Amino acid sequence: MLRTLVLTILLLPTTLFAQTTTQDKVRNYHRANEHKIVNEFLSLLSLPNIASDNPNIRKNAELILAMMKQRGLNPRLLEAQTPNTPPVVYGEWKTPGAQRTLILYAHYDGQPTDPKQWTGTLPWTPVFRSAATEAGGEILPTPGDGQPINPEWRIYARSASDDKAGVMAILTALDALKANSIALSSNIKFVFEGEEEAGSSHLGEIIKLNKDLLESDAWIICDGPVHQSGAKEVVFGARGDVNVDVTVYGAKRPLHSGHYGNWSPNPAMMLARLLATMKDDDGRVLINGWYSDVEPLGDAERRAIAEAPQYDEQLKTQLGIKRTEGGGKSLMELINVPSLNINGFASGDVGALARNVIPTSASVVLDLRLVRGNDVRRQVQRLIDHIQKQGYSVIDHNPTDTERSQYPLLAKVMARAGGYNAERTRMDLPLSINVIEAVQSTSKEKVVLLPTSGGSLPLSVITENLKTVTMSVPIANYDNNQHAENENIRLQNLWDGIETYAALMTMKQ
Amino acid sequence: MLRTLVLTILLLPTTLFAQTTTQDKVRNYHRANEHKIVNEFLSLLSLPNIASDNPNIRKNAELILAMMKQRGLNPRLLEAQTPNTPPVVYGEWKTPGAQRTLILYAHYDGQPTDPKQWTGTLPWTPVFRSAATEAGGEILPTPGDGQPINPEWRIYARSASDDKAGVMAILTALDALKANSIALSSNIKFVFEGEEEAGSSHLGEIIKLNKDLLESDAWIICDGPVHQSGAKEVVFGARGDVNVDVTVYGAKRPLHSGHYGNWSPNPAMMLARLLATMKDDDGRVLINGWYSDVEPLGDAERRAIAEAPQYDEQLKTQLGIKRTEGGGKSLMELINVPSLNINGFASGDVGALARNVIPTSASVVLDLRLVRGNDVRRQVQRLIDHIQKQGYSVIDHNPTDTERSQYPLLAKVMARAGGYNAERTRMDLPLSINVIEAVQSTSKEKVVLLPTSGGSLPLSVITENLKTVTMSVPIANYDNNQHAENENIRLQNLWDGIETYAALMTMKQ
Repeated sequence: MLRTLVLTILLLPTTLFAQTTTQDKVRNYHRANEHKIVNEFLSLLSLPNIASDNPNIRKNAELILAMMKQRGLNPRLLEAQTPNTPPVVYGEWKTPGAQRTLILYAHYDGQPTDPKQWTGTLPWTPVFRSAATEAGGEILPTPGDGQPINPEWRIYARSASDDKAGVMAILTALDALKANSIALSSNIKFVFEGEEEAGSSHLGEIIKLNKDLLESDAWIICDGPVHQSGAKEVVFGARGDVNVDVTVYGAKRPLHSGHYGNWSPNPAMMLARLLATMKDDDGRVLINGWYSDVEPLGDAERRAIAEAPQYDEQLKTQLGIKRTEGGGKSLMELINVPSLNINGFASGDVGALARNVIPTSASVVLDLRLVRGNDVRRQVQRLIDHIQKQGYSVIDHNPTDTERSQYPLLAKVMARAGGYNAERTRMDLPLSINVIEAVQSTSKEKVVLLPTSGGSLPLSVITENLKTVTMSVPIANYDNNQHAENENIRLQNLWDGIETYAALMTMKQ
Repeated sequence: MLRTLVLTILLLPTTLFAQTTTQDKVRNYHRANEHKIVNEFLSLLSLPNIASDNPNIRKNAELILAMMKQRGLNPRLLEAQTPNTPPVVYGEWKTPGAQRTLILYAHYDGQPTDPKQWTGTLPWTPVFRSAATEAGGEILPTPGDGQPINPEWRIYARSASDDKAGVMAILTALDALKANSIALSSNIKFVFEGEEEAGSSHLGEIIKLNKDLLESDAWIICDGPVHQSGAKEVVFGARGDVNVDVTVYGAKRPLHSGHYGNWSPNPAMMLARLLATMKDDDGRVLINGWYSDVEPLGDAERRAIAEAPQYDEQLKTQLGIKRTEGGGKSLMELINVPSLNINGFASGDVGALARNVIPTSASVVLDLRLVRGNDVRRQVQRLIDHIQKQGYSVIDHNPTDTERSQYPLLAKVMARAGGYNAERTRMDLPLSINVIEAVQSTSKEKVVLLPTSGGSLPLSVITENLKTVTMSVPIANYDNNQHAENENIRLQNLWDGIETYAALMTMKQ
């Protein structure tokens, strides 16, 4: 009798303050099950997951399929018609009486990476560290059952943050609700993509083949980092993105720099001079029309940017930079304009392999980010026009001998497949407001609301093919080294992410 | 009786036209012994020979020592005091009654190379081709004894031209003279260096330790290619050379190009903009004072340049370039001014490994060629001054956090060890004239005389330490891909080189 009374009292807040209690229950669940959650996560992180590596990317899909089968989500692989492309792993949870269907999206592929550039660990051998490497974090043994897991620890692995953490947070949020018998408020469809980092080339095709299956009121995207201040975020858009490869040419064979230098053109210097024409010292893009079709932000969006925490000075200190580009504009303002970034360039060799030669060619990979109003093809054409304006004949293949003899300056310019436009959802839709409230309910700090993310997501692939809207609710720590070597997730961010997604699954109808 | 008479008649030209006959005898020798010569050459080419690879570079020295011992040249290794540096392989041939001592110089080390960049063959697995790869040359089986060797065939291997061909030509010329009992006209000292491609850092030290041993009237350098027209050359100087590494910095960790691009500075773009300030579109170096201390050419030198065959247009066609740098000046004129070449640059990745990141740094290796009048340290300082003028704080180490927080633009600038000045010998010395005549005696075409080579040799290391003069008599084909992948020697150039060096060993006293 006494025990029943005590239990009743302990359970009291659950019924009185439903929202708070759901979060508590979810928290208790992930605390009680942290080793099980982490072990499942480590298994997933151990699978190499480059989209173009078909045998391995399928192993990822099969593991996620098994994880979803175990959870009763009636999963299946949605395949593109093109063979040997990564499938979408799809699953669903039907909620009796639900008036709304949400798609929860994450991706299980990761950016290519050179294992040699990782510090002390390898991309697909997940390892615990006591803190970020940059902050002196040291490698820890994987904690055994019963050993406490410090939430400030990090797991280092490719896709630890981007975006297998998304898959884990979503599936574990559901586990936590089911274990506590908490009813969901929406039908949930799970869409885990395997080709996001390769430009989502086949997502549109898969969506078209499964239009009925993928009907929903909104896609909620779990990808990318939270705000640099650590505050949770809801992001209502994402920039478009396209990569362009540019190569310029010198002589057909590498030449001795003493015998031919300063007579035979040096393609590295040619490329340096070409790139230098593209931006001014302040980082402003000098390509004609680059900013001309940007759709201006509305009042709600301007207000959201103004209210977001100012974090630029702290960031500069952390990143070790004294100067920023953009003529004094804040990072938040700058992600609302189109950008031009050099991902990498190469010509000849540097370091121990450098020789006294004139290289035969020089190559650069450019990354063009687009905002609402930009169009992928139009922006790439502006780049091509600019290169031509510098005197180059632009070709889409390696130069022939005839072309070499005809044109003093040759540039091969190739936009990579899979470029897409920016997308933005209105902040004042009823669903947008529900999402904001749900995320806010899990956080004492004010949730940061962003009109767009700096990063890109294939949102236009979704909205062009389906009648729906998209929003992003990211969970990763901002210093996760996403897309680079030494990618990692801070465990507290995973725990917070589970709570966030449980709140979204149970949010106001 | 009859047979004796026939033999006498056949031998008649030998005594009547001594010079022609020496060349004929040398030619007959290398024709009769081509398999033996080639086999010895292939053994030497099979040894990896990067100066910094101590175990392997010593195997080269030991093999050359054995080759010289077999020829009775009383060889020894001249070591620097610094341990684990490549030795000079020294040998000598004393000619009774000779009034003159010549040092014949070649080097047995080669430029570093990335085996992955070779086409179909590997640097230290010498392979025959039917012609240059660029001209469709195909891999041939190594010719067995008795199988004829076409002199247009090439051997592909690192140092096939630069400069193990020099070692082979010199030693085989002596073999040919000895086999024919032809007397030499000078004492010959053989100096085969093992560190030329690494800047001859210890040659000065070795010379100082062996001043008496290395006394001579002239050093004749067998290195580099003959004229582009195929004509033999005598070169009276060589440019100085120094390599400089420059690195500029962005944020301390690689950043997502969407989240931080166009706010956090991109070091690849910074480096492109910095390099673009160093030269104009015509290839003229814009660094202050770059050309100001060049010693003007004398009349003899100007005449030699004017008389040299004009080959620029053919070269342009062969190299696949429509445009040259230098404002219309000829290649021959341009090698008489100091140069600035980009050997290579790198930042982030290109190709399949490219990711959407802002790289943390960007690096370039510059090659500065110097002419008479320039000074290595002065020229490097001009480069540093120029980089500072562009707003950079120049450091000689990786930036500290304090430096990062203090300076908006940081450049690490490091001149590599082993830079040296240019050198030039007068063309009208009696010895110069004898050398010109000897080389001319082996060639129907007019020998090209050059005040300086475009390439560099550590001549100042010699002339600063010894009372002597230097001249270069190169033998390699000009399209040998020296310093690059797919280096090769055309066999006819090796045969011609043997004849040239036999003529030098027997030239007028």
